[in-house]
Amino acid sequence: MITILRLNHRSKRDKRVSTHVGLVSRAFGATDLVYSGEKDEVLEDSIKKVVKRWGGSFKINYSKDFIKTIKLYKKKGFIIIHLTMYGLELDKTVKNIDSKKNLLIVVGGEKVPREVYDLSDFNLSITNQPHSEIAALALTLDRLKKGEEFNIDFKNANLKIKPSNGSKEFY
Amino acid sequence: MITILRLNHRSKRDKRVSTHVGLVSRAFGATDLVYSGEKDEVLEDSIKKVVKRWGGSFKINYSKDFIKTIKLYKKKGFIIIHLTMYGLELDKTVKNIDSKKNLLIVVGGEKVPREVYDLSDFNLSITNQPHSEIAALALTLDRLKKGEEFNIDFKNANLKIKPSNGSKEFY
Repeated sequence: MITILRLNHRSKRDKRVSTHVGLVSRAFGATDLVYSGEKDEVLEDSIKKVVKRWGGSFKINYSKDFIKTIKLYKKKGFIIIHLTMYGLELDKTVKNIDSKKNLLIVVGGEKVPREVYDLSDFNLSITNQPHSEIAALALTLDRLKKGEEFNIDFKNANLKIKPSNGSKEFY
Repeated sequence: MITILRLNHRSKRDKRVSTHVGLVSRAFGATDLVYSGEKDEVLEDSIKKVVKRWGGSFKINYSKDFIKTIKLYKKKGFIIIHLTMYGLELDKTVKNIDSKKNLLIVVGGEKVPREVYDLSDFNLSITNQPHSEIAALALTLDRLKKGEEFNIDFKNANLKIKPSNGSKEFY
């Protein structure tokens, strides 16, 4: 089980970035997204619509207090992984993460409090350069899933694409 | 040489997504970003500021006509790769792409004209599920660079992070 925790969502400014975080989480095999910050029905609905159309059982939930949420998951035995540009190098570190255990991946942004770094078992960086939490999450899930994210069978899908070099085909 | 071509940028709606596309391009080893749609000084400045601070020689340029740009690069011998959720599977297809050649990676979005599919040597998909052009670009560059994007030395950087599990350290 892999839960993604998105911190400090702001419904106006972050709408598209948080939606991308949610969709990447689903497409790359996470179980669910928990987000904190501003509660946002539009974000929740856009994720739910994708699940309905494209299948699977991905969930989105809101957390009022992300520190509480991290502590709760830690108590439940989840490994806590925090994505930060200051963190340890992904490819050198991922082998130390037991990906058969339950994981909580914390996707921050600016102004992440000290406590998140301290509560995390792994502070992980993807290139140590400024870029995108969406890309960081995708690469992390890719390494944890070892490329198996490309073979997920999304149950109960209304739409399923047939890969093609130039047209839009469905099964 | 890897050029990223971002289609149909809208300065208000796409500001953050296009900035992420630019920063991922740079961090994962592309040479430059060309964007079309609305000309946007704020986007250009935000990318240039990152290059100044974090090093390297990544460039951003504007194209008024992306079809012309694709044709121009094709003429110059670049392999044209278009990222689309309808495309061929990344991991099965990437071995057929000669990554020693010059590449133009086209990052679309909604309503990409038919002609882009036809002009492309490879229409590539990353999971065939809806998610994020930012994640798609990151995974594609990762596969083309074979993980070597984590060892890029960005010249003339004012800031360089020292990887750490819990603090913010610089070289």
